[in-house]
Amino acid sequence: MRYTVIGGGVGCARFVSGLREHVRREEPDARIDVVVNTADDWWVSGLRIAPDHDSLLYALAGVNDRERGWGRSGESERVSAELAEWGVAPGWFTLGDLDLGTHIARTAWLRAGATVSDVYARLGARWHLGVTLHPATDDEIDTHVIVDDGRRMHFQEWWVRHRAALPARAFEQEGIDLARPSAGALEAVARADVVLVAPSNPVVSVGPVLAVPGMREAVAASPAPVVGVSGVIGGAVVRGMADACLAAIGVETDAAAVAQHYGARASGGLLDAWMVGLEDAASVARVEALGIATAAVPLWLRDADSSARVARDALALARRARSAGSAGDPDARRV
Amino acid sequence: MRYTVIGGGVGCARFVSGLREHVRREEPDARIDVVVNTADDWWVSGLRIAPDHDSLLYALAGVNDRERGWGRSGESERVSAELAEWGVAPGWFTLGDLDLGTHIARTAWLRAGATVSDVYARLGARWHLGVTLHPATDDEIDTHVIVDDGRRMHFQEWWVRHRAALPARAFEQEGIDLARPSAGALEAVARADVVLVAPSNPVVSVGPVLAVPGMREAVAASPAPVVGVSGVIGGAVVRGMADACLAAIGVETDAAAVAQHYGARASGGLLDAWMVGLEDAASVARVEALGIATAAVPLWLRDADSSARVARDALALARRARSAGSAGDPDARRV
Repeated sequence: MRYTVIGGGVGCARFVSGLREHVRREEPDARIDVVVNTADDWWVSGLRIAPDHDSLLYALAGVNDRERGWGRSGESERVSAELAEWGVAPGWFTLGDLDLGTHIARTAWLRAGATVSDVYARLGARWHLGVTLHPATDDEIDTHVIVDDGRRMHFQEWWVRHRAALPARAFEQEGIDLARPSAGALEAVARADVVLVAPSNPVVSVGPVLAVPGMREAVAASPAPVVGVSGVIGGAVVRGMADACLAAIGVETDAAAVAQHYGARASGGLLDAWMVGLEDAASVARVEALGIATAAVPLWLRDADSSARVARDALALARRARSAGSAGDPDARRV
Repeated sequence: MRYTVIGGGVGCARFVSGLREHVRREEPDARIDVVVNTADDWWVSGLRIAPDHDSLLYALAGVNDRERGWGRSGESERVSAELAEWGVAPGWFTLGDLDLGTHIARTAWLRAGATVSDVYARLGARWHLGVTLHPATDDEIDTHVIVDDGRRMHFQEWWVRHRAALPARAFEQEGIDLARPSAGALEAVARADVVLVAPSNPVVSVGPVLAVPGMREAVAASPAPVVGVSGVIGGAVVRGMADACLAAIGVETDAAAVAQHYGARASGGLLDAWMVGLEDAASVARVEALGIATAAVPLWLRDADSSARVARDALALARRARSAGSAGDPDARRV
């Protein structure tokens, strides 16, 4: 079996860790690919930073800082203090020393002509991840946020500096119109037995992956069922500030509302199935009514066991969606 | 008075520190400029490194590692270890964390369109140096070494990795033919009251500065006397491995031989005057015979006092050279 996950960042990392754990325990021959959002990558201090990718890389390698929730464990910030002295780093964005090694390597490779896919492969080769990461696109995308007073700022400034507290009016992905999906991303989607949409930020992680021209079409054309996992449980985001992003696009912070935002595949949307937390069991019928197979399960990704269970539940839901309708053939799918 | 020093690296830093000390004590209105060699700058790990400049910067700022002789004091190497893991740094070239801050800033500025002169100005503004540093050129030069077995390697590889132990056949400054002197360097030379050639490596520090097309001519045209300070004392280099460089160009490691290599200004060479150590008093007559005013003085730059004395002696020798001949008019100069 081949499982392809779409997402990025810490929520995705936790879900993929669970999927990897499930595969290790029960399907050792299965393969896991992740199509990773690149739209919150940015240039700072002359270096290319890729937050969604690096969160995945570090977490899957087991070198992430679990307490802080981002970056490397055992991190220090000696270089960052120097960059602040030189005035080349915004004071609100801290680059750890170990983390900087990654950014310097990535930037050196990119400057030497490597693609983002090449960079992913080189970074991924350091540890035994058990998972293959693909950028959604090799082309450069930069997300900017238009805030309510009309100011336009880089997504990272809005997200990190302002903690997403400035009401946002819109997100603009600069460069996305000319971007093309990476070969690895397309192949991972086309050959997937199940496509899983991670409990990542629907607006700035999952959204931009699908907005790369050709990617939404590739997912729609995949014979695999598409199962989404809600990152909203009981009306609140599990982590991060996705609620601020959802508000900006007029979507309620609610598991059913996110499913509706993604849409039923049978109606030209993304999802064959949607998995919500037990806390949202009451909304199952509402999502099912959209034409999306829905299950409410214990959704908290607390540890290896609970995360593996969530992955197993998602795959069971995929089987249910597959048997209910012939994926890839919307007319044959149950509504 | 305006004193312009030509050189780069630690030997230059010690001499300039002494000159600055002398100026502070006895000529508080005097100005010091340094025209710095850029030919051993290089790209490593995607970052632009400028060893001759940074040695000067750190030493003049008082943040240099005096015991080790290079880099920042209180240095650590966390990022460097990561770069080695990523395979983007040669194992033989260590980049300290604090030092990396400088390289990241420099690279970011250069990538954003700053000139090397701009970078010098920004780096120099952090501390009160009391000295203005100018790159010999804003154009990129890379020095390669041809070793006896015919291999060609970057100067830093030869210098740092092989500790200059592979006999060298030639040094090639890639890009130097198309380089032009920086505006700051030209101005510092043209307006100097005394031009001082630092006790830097004659082959790979002083040599490339003068080899930038137009620079040797600018020094020759300067009305100021040109006084060189020997970096060879008693037949040995004071520090570093300049002897290996001198051997490659067929010059003996000898104070008089270096003076002869630089040549008398009256005969189309560089020097009006040459200052050697007491250890080389016997060679004074030989250098004088070349048409170069020569003095033997205590030349070891041990501390603030001894370094200031060396600077004072060099300036006294400049006055002697100036009174002996009308600088800038070779015909009027004593031979």
